[in-house]
Amino acid sequence: MLSRLEIAQQLDREDPLFELRHLFHIPAQTVYLDGNSLGPLSYSAQERIAQTTQQEWGNDLIASWNKHSWISKPQQVGDRIGKLVGASEGQTLCCDSISINLFKVLVAALEVFPGDTIVSTEDNFPTDLYMIQGLQKLLEERNIKLELVAENELENALSRDVAALLVTHVNFRTGAMLNIERLAQLAHKNNAAIIVDLAHSAGAVPVYLDDWQVDFAVGCTYKYLNAGPGAPAFVYVAERHLGKAYQPLFGWMGHAAPFEFSPEYVPAQDISQFLVGTPPIVSMSAVEGALDVFEQTSIPALREKSVKLSEAFEQALAEKGLNQELQSISPTDSNVRGSQLSFHHEDAYAICQAWIHSGVIADYRAPSYLRVGFAPLYVGFEDLFVAIEKLEHIMRNKTYKEAQFQVKQKVT
Amino acid sequence: MLSRLEIAQQLDREDPLFELRHLFHIPAQTVYLDGNSLGPLSYSAQERIAQTTQQEWGNDLIASWNKHSWISKPQQVGDRIGKLVGASEGQTLCCDSISINLFKVLVAALEVFPGDTIVSTEDNFPTDLYMIQGLQKLLEERNIKLELVAENELENALSRDVAALLVTHVNFRTGAMLNIERLAQLAHKNNAAIIVDLAHSAGAVPVYLDDWQVDFAVGCTYKYLNAGPGAPAFVYVAERHLGKAYQPLFGWMGHAAPFEFSPEYVPAQDISQFLVGTPPIVSMSAVEGALDVFEQTSIPALREKSVKLSEAFEQALAEKGLNQELQSISPTDSNVRGSQLSFHHEDAYAICQAWIHSGVIADYRAPSYLRVGFAPLYVGFEDLFVAIEKLEHIMRNKTYKEAQFQVKQKVT
Repeated sequence: MLSRLEIAQQLDREDPLFELRHLFHIPAQTVYLDGNSLGPLSYSAQERIAQTTQQEWGNDLIASWNKHSWISKPQQVGDRIGKLVGASEGQTLCCDSISINLFKVLVAALEVFPGDTIVSTEDNFPTDLYMIQGLQKLLEERNIKLELVAENELENALSRDVAALLVTHVNFRTGAMLNIERLAQLAHKNNAAIIVDLAHSAGAVPVYLDDWQVDFAVGCTYKYLNAGPGAPAFVYVAERHLGKAYQPLFGWMGHAAPFEFSPEYVPAQDISQFLVGTPPIVSMSAVEGALDVFEQTSIPALREKSVKLSEAFEQALAEKGLNQELQSISPTDSNVRGSQLSFHHEDAYAICQAWIHSGVIADYRAPSYLRVGFAPLYVGFEDLFVAIEKLEHIMRNKTYKEAQFQVKQKVT
Repeated sequence: MLSRLEIAQQLDREDPLFELRHLFHIPAQTVYLDGNSLGPLSYSAQERIAQTTQQEWGNDLIASWNKHSWISKPQQVGDRIGKLVGASEGQTLCCDSISINLFKVLVAALEVFPGDTIVSTEDNFPTDLYMIQGLQKLLEERNIKLELVAENELENALSRDVAALLVTHVNFRTGAMLNIERLAQLAHKNNAAIIVDLAHSAGAVPVYLDDWQVDFAVGCTYKYLNAGPGAPAFVYVAERHLGKAYQPLFGWMGHAAPFEFSPEYVPAQDISQFLVGTPPIVSMSAVEGALDVFEQTSIPALREKSVKLSEAFEQALAEKGLNQELQSISPTDSNVRGSQLSFHHEDAYAICQAWIHSGVIADYRAPSYLRVGFAPLYVGFEDLFVAIEKLEHIMRNKTYKEAQFQVKQKVT
């Protein structure tokens, strides 16, 4: 009979994606279960950054805006991201941060959909809610209302007054995954826009923005897309809204003819209107390099593996008898969760620190959650075996009670 | 008697800043007079990018947010930029783009100063005007007025109704430099804010934001600060406004306690409230490396040299008899212009292309301007000798009439 380790090793041998891990720089003796917070460095991203810095910026200087198509990077890279989230060309840009892109699409949605209420979920990622609150304060006279409901109450919350539904596809705490297609249908039936935050989806789970008839979407590239800390985000605007919905950050890159330097803003009629300032070329080159990895696989293949990984983790935890002490707050059905599992424990922070100290990197989310990400590009079954062994040791011996693990640092 | 070349070489030998050029990667056989559009790559920026990518992101992954102080980079790098523009600590952030930072400070100014009119100059850089136009459309009910005047009419345009004066210190076309200290006094006498765009000032001319009592400022790091294409910008908010003026892009990084993940936005009471999304670490590392160069000199020393360079260029142009055909649109007094000269010519675009073809990189600004930047960190007097010789050849032989130079590409 095979040992647990041997079974894990056999699963790795049978895994068609196993070799992809060699495209990444993963430090020795490290199991990285935090790709949902910051994806690791791929060699292709590293090369593209060096190439853009030295050859393009260094050698070709200002000429690179044309010679290396810097000027159209937001659209080019945007379209490549679009492919991974079911968006056909001309609807996606790589630019700015999720927060800023949210601001753009919130205003755009309020422009083309009637009503003044935005519905979102009470445990949405805070920046999504904050951006609405900022808009409420800014547009005080308009009296925009924000209605927060539980995820399972979303369908009931839609009414004629709702202008937009702002939902995050995969919940950052629990990993619960919403049925966007259904929510989009309901939103449209009620004459409301659906805005989707794909922070924990892009590069991890299948997304079909066009097919689902999503109106607007935003997402980040530094989690499952592995483009580096604070890498530029993306924004999607469905073609039917282009030239109609406007975003109010009238930067020169969103002008119909930016290099005419006219004093009057004339909005571009295509997705470019959602650009603001000069595009960040070096950080976008990291996105390009990071996306190269995805040319070697497909989202459905990645999804299939990440489901297997999370199920294997759950099963091992149960077999070790750790699933009582570490209470999962994620959906039990892997079909309705993203690429992570989260566990409640009073001492989640210290457990996470002790686990990191042992070489297994996961993360902690306030107030009491241990969050474990399964990024199928570079995490394998033997990695999970190692992670579980170490976790068992920490829990059995309560090593997390040691003072060194209890002192809280600011974490991200 | 010394030849013109020998005089130039002697000036280079006497130049205390001459050796600084070796800190930069300038392609062979190239005279770079376009640092006011895109500064060149310094070796320190190149190293910092590689270090941040490989050692911090690659090896230390998510732990770098604490271990390498990624989380406080916007403030740390902001303070370093602040030193170059006369801002004491705690008032400057490195973040986002100029356009987005303008949006923040425009709203902040309207919040703390009475009135609904913004005064700016008719030939301000377009994105500055566009951002106001976007705000006008967004806050339609508030009926914000934008009054555009000539630079020499600014003082007369101030009245009790004006909420804010938005001016660019050094004009992007002409290089004309405004007296910000005087404008700030006048603005304050009229109970208006002064917002200053330092795009063509930071790293090139002395700026004393604190002493001049400027209220808000923005600037970019990819021109004279040499931080790379589309590098993050900066924003300055005078200490007296912190905790009072708010910016409306309520991203999680501007929250008083971002990692508590509270659903309610509570604004940070310090400069951090002007942050929005996750900071772009790799591109900020380029800013850090680029700023290292400035540790070896001072802004007054740089200014002194750039004045000499622009005067030497003007003089050589006159001696060659080219100053009639190429009509300067810049102030004749070098005390009231920035670090550039601009010339009107019907064929400015083609002349610029021919000059670039000969190895001298300058830039063109629509509709008819040849713009020549004098970045004293890496441009010397022999460089100008070469540039003038080549320009003379182009103008005498009208080589710019060749078809290859006439076809317009999109330029930046």
